Amino acid sequence: MIAHIITIGDEILIGQTLNTNAACIGDQLTNIQISVNKTSVVGDDHDDIMAEFKTCWAKNDLLIVTGGLGPTFDDKTLESIAKALNRKLEVDKEALEMVKEKYQKYARKKRSNNEELAQPRVKMATIPENSMPIRNPLGTAPAVQINLENTVLIALPGVPREMEVIFEQTAAPMLKRASHGSVFCEESIYADDVMESALAPLIDKVMIDNPDVYVKSHPRGAENKPHMEIHFSMTTAEEEKAQEKLHKAVTQLSDMIIKIDGKVFPEQQVSS
Amino acid sequence: MIAHIITIGDEILIGQTLNTNAACIGDQLTNIQISVNKTSVVGDDHDDIMAEFKTCWAKNDLLIVTGGLGPTFDDKTLESIAKALNRKLEVDKEALEMVKEKYQKYARKKRSNNEELAQPRVKMATIPENSMPIRNPLGTAPAVQINLENTVLIALPGVPREMEVIFEQTAAPMLKRASHGSVFCEESIYADDVMESALAPLIDKVMIDNPDVYVKSHPRGAENKPHMEIHFSMTTAEEEKAQEKLHKAVTQLSDMIIKIDGKVFPEQQVSS
Repeated sequence: MIAHIITIGDEILIGQTLNTNAACIGDQLTNIQISVNKTSVVGDDHDDIMAEFKTCWAKNDLLIVTGGLGPTFDDKTLESIAKALNRKLEVDKEALEMVKEKYQKYARKKRSNNEELAQPRVKMATIPENSMPIRNPLGTAPAVQINLENTVLIALPGVPREMEVIFEQTAAPMLKRASHGSVFCEESIYADDVMESALAPLIDKVMIDNPDVYVKSHPRGAENKPHMEIHFSMTTAEEEKAQEKLHKAVTQLSDMIIKIDGKVFPEQQVSS
Repeated sequence: MIAHIITIGDEILIGQTLNTNAACIGDQLTNIQISVNKTSVVGDDHDDIMAEFKTCWAKNDLLIVTGGLGPTFDDKTLESIAKALNRKLEVDKEALEMVKEKYQKYARKKRSNNEELAQPRVKMATIPENSMPIRNPLGTAPAVQINLENTVLIALPGVPREMEVIFEQTAAPMLKRASHGSVFCEESIYADDVMESALAPLIDKVMIDNPDVYVKSHPRGAENKPHMEIHFSMTTAEEEKAQEKLHKAVTQLSDMIIKIDGKVFPEQQVSS
């Protein structure tokens, strides 16, 4: 199963906000063996959202979109997706109930009568025809699922804790069933006193000897004090065998690093 | 000037590493009035890098690519760009000198004779023909600039502190000259006790009355304790007038929020 994550929001493009949503979803999809082959960020612009959606929806089994579901003028995600799919936008009865409930609850807490469903509130229940609203336990705007020809699209709110809880409670269990229960296994070791260029041929050798295991080095230290993270990973249906295979590759590389006078640690060490 | 930032690395896609590079570059480009209209992340895959590069290079004045310049097998950025541009890869004399100097310096510090330019080291000086290497003051792999027809491409290392120093010292001054010295002005206020749906019509009114100012709300609190950041921004050649215009919009919105019993703060308050 191949996925693309689209994050929507000017605040990400201008570097005001870090894209923690894409990282969180990338991590969770990887854990349930769904390959994230690309992520992208576009601003709060109708044409840009439409163009990005049109470019990628047919190429992926799964499209996760975050951001732009709220009540303000610059929340344009569902309007843009509807237009790209040539579907009407309509006030969804179930979504409207979800929004109503939230405002009733909120008004009770504040002991006010402000339950009125003004236009910005109705906007959050206005979704493309033939789509399914998903309850938002922490916020007001429902998430939305749209089943396209060969692609499932899930649009989630941009507020991280709302996005996370909807993803964990609703999207992840559904996707896990669809991805047939394979798992992603990983392990990192850390090496000191070995430069990345010296590591390169050793990693090549380990990958040839262990064809199921993917090995990647990440320089974490300074130039005159090389400190490397080396990340081993594989995707498999048999977790126990995978751990064995990972362990074999880790041991082989560790031995080779020690032979060229490097130091190896199973955990990140704070350099002195 | 319109820019696209491409980040390369499986570790970003799987959520192992946060994409701080795109945020840092987005912030810096915005400060020198270059519009970032999209950012994307692709993995360490030759075809994916090529496809992404081909899709976006002609649409943008500036393309910043980070990651994939190192010595290991999975550093495929320059090879993929060369192929997409139909250019040969060649060992660049100047780049090779840069790499050599680094290893000589490193060998002196370690008092070893390991100055040998083995294949992984030569790889870092192997760049597309007709491109310019840029010195990397903190690491080994040089950055690379390629001037295409109407697009400038700058490929930077993925290690954040190397990327940052090259961007600040070499790329930013060059791009600042090209973008004619306009500036991006911004200001945030924070509001308590106002829901986003109640803010929406107020923001609409402020944007109509202040057409140069862009206003966006970001929910930062919990559902039953609304806490909003409201971000005001504009791009201008006249900084002083811009500050006045921003201030007028901020004051207008603040007054309206106070009228509906909200609280406004100029700085982020830690909620009690």
